[in-house]
Amino acid sequence: MPLLKLRKNKRGMSPGSLVFTGEKKVEKTKISVFDFDEKGYHEKDLPEDRIESLSEFKTNKNVSWLNICGIHDAELIGKVGEIFNIHPLVLEDILNTGHNPKVEEFDDFIFVITKMINYNKELNELNIEQVSFILGKNYLITFQEKEGDVFDIIRDKIRSNNGRIRKSGADYLAYRLIDTMVDNYFLVLEKIDERTEYLEDELFENPEKSSLENIHLIRKEVIKLRRAVVPLRDIVHALEREQYPFIAKSTYIYLRDLYDHIRQIIDTVENYREIINSLQEVYLSSASHKMNEVVKILTIISTIFIPLTFIAGIYGMNFRTDISVWNMPELDWKYGYPFALAIMGLIFIGMVIFFKRKKWF
Amino acid sequence: MPLLKLRKNKRGMSPGSLVFTGEKKVEKTKISVFDFDEKGYHEKDLPEDRIESLSEFKTNKNVSWLNICGIHDAELIGKVGEIFNIHPLVLEDILNTGHNPKVEEFDDFIFVITKMINYNKELNELNIEQVSFILGKNYLITFQEKEGDVFDIIRDKIRSNNGRIRKSGADYLAYRLIDTMVDNYFLVLEKIDERTEYLEDELFENPEKSSLENIHLIRKEVIKLRRAVVPLRDIVHALEREQYPFIAKSTYIYLRDLYDHIRQIIDTVENYREIINSLQEVYLSSASHKMNEVVKILTIISTIFIPLTFIAGIYGMNFRTDISVWNMPELDWKYGYPFALAIMGLIFIGMVIFFKRKKWF
Amino acid sequence: MPLLKLRKNKRGMSPGSLVFTGEKKVEKTKISVFDFDEKGYHEKDLPEDRIESLSEFKTNKNVSWLNICGIHDAELIGKVGEIFNIHPLVLEDILNTGHNPKVEEFDDFIFVITKMINYNKELNELNIEQVSFILGKNYLITFQEKEGDVFDIIRDKIRSNNGRIRKSGADYLAYRLIDTMVDNYFLVLEKIDERTEYLEDELFENPEKSSLENIHLIRKEVIKLRRAVVPLRDIVHALEREQYPFIAKSTYIYLRDLYDHIRQIIDTVENYREIINSLQEVYLSSASHKMNEVVKILTIISTIFIPLTFIAGIYGMNFRTDISVWNMPELDWKYGYPFALAIMGLIFIGMVIFFKRKKWF
Amino acid sequence: MPLLKLRKNKRGMSPGSLVFTGEKKVEKTKISVFDFDEKGYHEKDLPEDRIESLSEFKTNKNVSWLNICGIHDAELIGKVGEIFNIHPLVLEDILNTGHNPKVEEFDDFIFVITKMINYNKELNELNIEQVSFILGKNYLITFQEKEGDVFDIIRDKIRSNNGRIRKSGADYLAYRLIDTMVDNYFLVLEKIDERTEYLEDELFENPEKSSLENIHLIRKEVIKLRRAVVPLRDIVHALEREQYPFIAKSTYIYLRDLYDHIRQIIDTVENYREIINSLQEVYLSSASHKMNEVVKILTIISTIFIPLTFIAGIYGMNFRTDISVWNMPELDWKYGYPFALAIMGLIFIGMVIFFKRKKWF
Amino acid sequence: MPLLKLRKNKRGMSPGSLVFTGEKKVEKTKISVFDFDEKGYHEKDLPEDRIESLSEFKTNKNVSWLNICGIHDAELIGKVGEIFNIHPLVLEDILNTGHNPKVEEFDDFIFVITKMINYNKELNELNIEQVSFILGKNYLITFQEKEGDVFDIIRDKIRSNNGRIRKSGADYLAYRLIDTMVDNYFLVLEKIDERTEYLEDELFENPEKSSLENIHLIRKEVIKLRRAVVPLRDIVHALEREQYPFIAKSTYIYLRDLYDHIRQIIDTVENYREIINSLQEVYLSSASHKMNEVVKILTIISTIFIPLTFIAGIYGMNFRTDISVWNMPELDWKYGYPFALAIMGLIFIGMVIFFKRKKWF
Repeated sequence: MPLLKLRKNKRGMSPGSLVFTGEKKVEKTKISVFDFDEKGYHEKDLPEDRIESLSEFKTNKNVSWLNICGIHDAELIGKVGEIFNIHPLVLEDILNTGHNPKVEEFDDFIFVITKMINYNKELNELNIEQVSFILGKNYLITFQEKEGDVFDIIRDKIRSNNGRIRKSGADYLAYRLIDTMVDNYFLVLEKIDERTEYLEDELFENPEKSSLENIHLIRKEVIKLRRAVVPLRDIVHALEREQYPFIAKSTYIYLRDLYDHIRQIIDTVENYREIINSLQEVYLSSASHKMNEVVKILTIISTIFIPLTFIAGIYGMNFRTDISVWNMPELDWKYGYPFALAIMGLIFIGMVIFFKRKKWF
Repeated sequence: MPLLKLRKNKRGMSPGSLVFTGEKKVEKTKISVFDFDEKGYHEKDLPEDRIESLSEFKTNKNVSWLNICGIHDAELIGKVGEIFNIHPLVLEDILNTGHNPKVEEFDDFIFVITKMINYNKELNELNIEQVSFILGKNYLITFQEKEGDVFDIIRDKIRSNNGRIRKSGADYLAYRLIDTMVDNYFLVLEKIDERTEYLEDELFENPEKSSLENIHLIRKEVIKLRRAVVPLRDIVHALEREQYPFIAKSTYIYLRDLYDHIRQIIDTVENYREIINSLQEVYLSSASHKMNEVVKILTIISTIFIPLTFIAGIYGMNFRTDISVWNMPELDWKYGYPFALAIMGLIFIGMVIFFKRKKWF
Repeated sequence: MPLLKLRKNKRGMSPGSLVFTGEKKVEKTKISVFDFDEKGYHEKDLPEDRIESLSEFKTNKNVSWLNICGIHDAELIGKVGEIFNIHPLVLEDILNTGHNPKVEEFDDFIFVITKMINYNKELNELNIEQVSFILGKNYLITFQEKEGDVFDIIRDKIRSNNGRIRKSGADYLAYRLIDTMVDNYFLVLEKIDERTEYLEDELFENPEKSSLENIHLIRKEVIKLRRAVVPLRDIVHALEREQYPFIAKSTYIYLRDLYDHIRQIIDTVENYREIINSLQEVYLSSASHKMNEVVKILTIISTIFIPLTFIAGIYGMNFRTDISVWNMPELDWKYGYPFALAIMGLIFIGMVIFFKRKKWF
Repeated sequence: MPLLKLRKNKRGMSPGSLVFTGEKKVEKTKISVFDFDEKGYHEKDLPEDRIESLSEFKTNKNVSWLNICGIHDAELIGKVGEIFNIHPLVLEDILNTGHNPKVEEFDDFIFVITKMINYNKELNELNIEQVSFILGKNYLITFQEKEGDVFDIIRDKIRSNNGRIRKSGADYLAYRLIDTMVDNYFLVLEKIDERTEYLEDELFENPEKSSLENIHLIRKEVIKLRRAVVPLRDIVHALEREQYPFIAKSTYIYLRDLYDHIRQIIDTVENYREIINSLQEVYLSSASHKMNEVVKILTIISTIFIPLTFIAGIYGMNFRTDISVWNMPELDWKYGYPFALAIMGLIFIGMVIFFKRKKWF
Repeated sequence: MPLLKLRKNKRGMSPGSLVFTGEKKVEKTKISVFDFDEKGYHEKDLPEDRIESLSEFKTNKNVSWLNICGIHDAELIGKVGEIFNIHPLVLEDILNTGHNPKVEEFDDFIFVITKMINYNKELNELNIEQVSFILGKNYLITFQEKEGDVFDIIRDKIRSNNGRIRKSGADYLAYRLIDTMVDNYFLVLEKIDERTEYLEDELFENPEKSSLENIHLIRKEVIKLRRAVVPLRDIVHALEREQYPFIAKSTYIYLRDLYDHIRQIIDTVENYREIINSLQEVYLSSASHKMNEVVKILTIISTIFIPLTFIAGIYGMNFRTDISVWNMPELDWKYGYPFALAIMGLIFIGMVIFFKRKKWF
């Protein structure tokens, strides 16, 4: 799970060279078109060889949404770029799936890069996918690495003419798509929240070595999430502030709302960073506490039995009592053995009392 | 106690869809109205089915305070919104109880979201409740998640015509309500202070594993408190700076005072963060110190008795003195035993002096 | 030593209600007046019942300094406020001894809150006292929690007509009083410096558990000091920058000098924070080092004597040599015992060399 | 691997004194010239004694790229400076290979200092080399410490007239060179990423002492990388914002792209700092865990065998059973020995169960 | 080595009172004058009683450099102040050797405070000395605490008419003096670098308790250095930005160069802070590792020999084999002893294999 998506094999290439630098996630690029206005909608998939027909959507009066799934085919993307008059550097950024989120204004369109984040339950890690937007006057082109179900919600809205979407322009459609992705961030946060709560319980009850790994993993995920969201905040803030020609006035209130949501996500992410740092320290403290308990047991046992063993050792010495009355006369005493046991018992009891006072039991 | 109140089931919904996303805290929504001017006041509870009658308060010349307790009934809130001409996105924010505090200006009113924080003594945790304000020309609408006693103080003031409140407008009323909530933050801080002081004593005297949990708990509460207060500072700062049409000039001095109080809370909260970080380190140090003590006892006992036991072991060897004069002749000495005991005594005394010098006693 | 002075019993009170929220530090409020110009001075204590006579100082042409010692008597402060036309919110701030330092401009006067800090040698802690200033055209009113000797230096200067003070206005007097308090901060820093130096030596020589407590205490004091000084910097910066009507042009250069001093204090305070953090880590490291030493002794003793004891144990086994030549024939050897001792001696020497090589001695 | 390249022997010299302060990395300075326009190119190496001929490139209409490899010869650099009218302070900065990256505008040219970073696989450390640019109207002079292969890519592009480079001016050439160096930073990041991943695995599986050294090494490399990249961001930002006379309008979009890349590198570097801090803590935790395991084994063995040995010691005491029936009658029991073994067995089993419950196995 | 130079005995003094607050470093104040223009120079030492003759340098057309070495004589400094019309507050700052670096503009001159830092090899600590500059139209007055050799380099330049110095004004002279001091900071950094490198090696090879002290010492020196350099950056930045009347246009490019150097120092200092923090953690980790090694040895020895000793203890029990066949018949076996040794050997080998597998060897 590397932090950095590398721009392999790109060294020395001219800027604007179209080379896909990510991981190929779908077999075949799929181009689907949604063409709608308030009255109706038209939906179709476009075969690769009929790509020139896209040019019609550039000028017709309906709102057109072109979704391109799978961006490994640099040549195809290049053709789309030609049709819509997109600068090669923009196309290069679209193909570079490790690019940071950003917004750029051009004469014909606004270009936005965002990150879609999903929680992969099986691998227990975050899936990060780049989604790029080309928002023109009446059209929106989206570039996805692979097909997902997140945008289907919006497709259904268009089909069912539910809400404002069919009544509004391409700018509102773009807003709704980004909003849906931001809603997804909340789900990811929820997942992180769940795991953090679980970790907390584990740490206070029985810290394992795996807890440490989990702390580190969550920390890395929080870093990744932050990396996707913080530039997105700046993007939406820029969109909301500046007067872009392709964004209708009525859309600004929605962008402000979106901005609020992203800020909330960032606040929460920052709080998690703090909590995870705290948990790391809790782990260290808990481990130290556990060791303390172990050493205490060792000390109690040793402290009690080592002196007793010493006394037994004394009575085990082989001095010959018959040679001299000084030589261990106690071995010949009538009550020597009970006396020895009594001494040992007293030491034992004394030790127990000592540790009781130290509150070690 | 999750950090994030989730926007469950909201994914894919149109913006402005009214869905309550919090936890239902009261059985039935209660709408109570206070209508007052300098001369008198009128107080009543409104049944849900007579909600249209609210429209009269929008225009009459008295100050009207509509308090809506319980916001789980999205439909009812929707009706209120229609009567007072509130944008659906605003209503959505009111219903989303996990929203960050914020202020927004509209043509007809100012919209403010704040957080009420109480310390729940039984569960030993913070209760956070969202309170939203719609401040219009002559009316104030407040939305609470559940009934609390905090606003009763203000109700009594209105009834008894005590202070400036009956003489001033809806803006002063809003100020007083927020001020009362901020006073409550002081009580929460007081509680955190108490617990921190208690923790400190515990840590220096006898650090327990529970101390660690308490540090972590307080840290999380401080994060929560900060999260509520920091945006509130920005809100009050904005209100105090910008010239809002619904806020009387005479109210600004009070807002400045309120701003001072909030800043003091934030300063204190930041100081607690630092102190809590320090306490975490103190815990680690104390635990390490405790372990040190335990290991010292272990070392003393072992270091004293292991050599003694070894000597006793020497004299316990079964070499036959009758075969050779080289074989443990000391066993046959007259004063062999006292001699052995003396050696052991000397070692014991030497060890004690050694440890005294090391200042281990 | 709580961080937060609480605004107890204030919840729900109207803003501007005069309630003393601190700790009563003197029995009786003392009002003393200094009235002076270049030619002479007049000094007297005013009985509480003749408080109305204060009004004369508001208008006469001399510089008048009214010092009010003890602010627990809210009613009295209220009367003073009436005479000098002070807004109730200002009086409330004066009585709230936990207020953060601040400056506010009014039509008739400038209002400043500062903190006087003394090091209490007996309790080994910082005494923080609130001192408020009302700086009018020809008068200065100071409110102190209790009488201290810090201002006596200034009183002597007035009496002896030493320096610029009698030649200047109330603004210069106010500057001199604040300057004297800032000089006191240097003394407090000196005290902290001394204790930090002492702690450092202690930590490197023989870290005790009390060191840890002392680190924590100093850290809290540094937090308190910072809390008093940082807003004071902003206050003096504001005074120096903005053109206040009651501050003479010639005073600005002194304010700039004062600002420099405060900045120096803040720089030093920040450096102490860093050093104290470092000391905390040094404590942890030292404790760990100490433990290491203890464990080393334990290991040396155990590692040397446990094998020796084992060998002695071997020779202490009761196999009957008469039954079989295989049963411990060494017990019957002529030089068995010296041989055994020799083996033990060799092991002992081997161990010592081993530990020497490990550099444990 | 010192952080600071020292300005040895420079103390007291006049500013603008030309003294090479780095390490001599090539034997002989090599001056190579590329002179090209859209139609053709001319490439040659210039002997040191014909250096005056450089002056022609200052004025001719083609784009001229002068690359000077090896800057230890201060006199030579001084001559170049004279020809191109370069301020001695600029030449001094070129010769001071420890200078921070910066940009400065002059009347005739723009002066830029950057750092080339390579990962040295053999020494496992970062190679940092200073590359300075003098960008004039039609010429670009680059100063390198030693020959590298990084710029060869660009040379090939010029030779093969591949891409925009032959069609554009000296500004685009400079951009391409810097871009190539930034691409190299990505390779360095990749290397750091690889090593961090490797470290992570090592830390969680089997932390060694060398891991600690590696963490420290990577941390230092990240510091170095940041030190080179952060000022470069400011440089490119300044170039992109301000309207420099020698930079064509069409180049700005490329600078913006470059700026994006540098920002991405910085973001990644910051993330690595955080991850490395986390790894340091993981190391400490892992070491603590490992110790815990060791101490547990010690405790188990000691706790089980010390009491057993004590019991054996009891039965090894030499009380004479024939003198008194109180003296260890159990030695004369018929089943005394099996009984003793049984007791030991019971204690052993009890201990094992005790530790099982503690989950130590 | 206190952080704070105290303003002892200054409490309550009027601002502008001339009291020397530092440590007296020379016996006698020495006033030396350099008077030069392009054509020649004049150098002399001035006796204290002819101090009034200084006034001539205020007005003559040559550049005059007055260096005052030793500032403990407040009266003398006062006289100089009178001659050059220096405000008492400025003189007070000159005498207060603990003042932070700063720049202040007056009608007649610019006042600058800087810190000279030298590394004292004998005491192994930093020497910090305050150097103040009064830069007037044609004169420069410098105040030093004691004579040093740093300025001699500049004196030689003046004497030998080497470089621009004789051709330029007092502003260039001041720049050169500050530049020389900044060059000295590089030497101090070099020293810190050396010691950090040494510490690093020590920490990874054999961390001693003294390493900890050294880390703390270096950390404090870095704090001190930062404290001197950061305000100096602001000073030079202000000088370079604002158009001061006494600074020639041609000097600004040198100030910019100086600013670059100071920024480089600050960057390096910040990097050292980070590296030192890292080293502190490395120390802790190394100490923990060392302990781990010690505990491992303890565990190995104990784990191997304690069970063996137990077995020897078993065979040392005194059960009487003649009473019952159940009583330790193995003592009477023919091969009992070899059998016992064999068991012990097997346990020993088993243990060794166990620890091998744990990779403890």
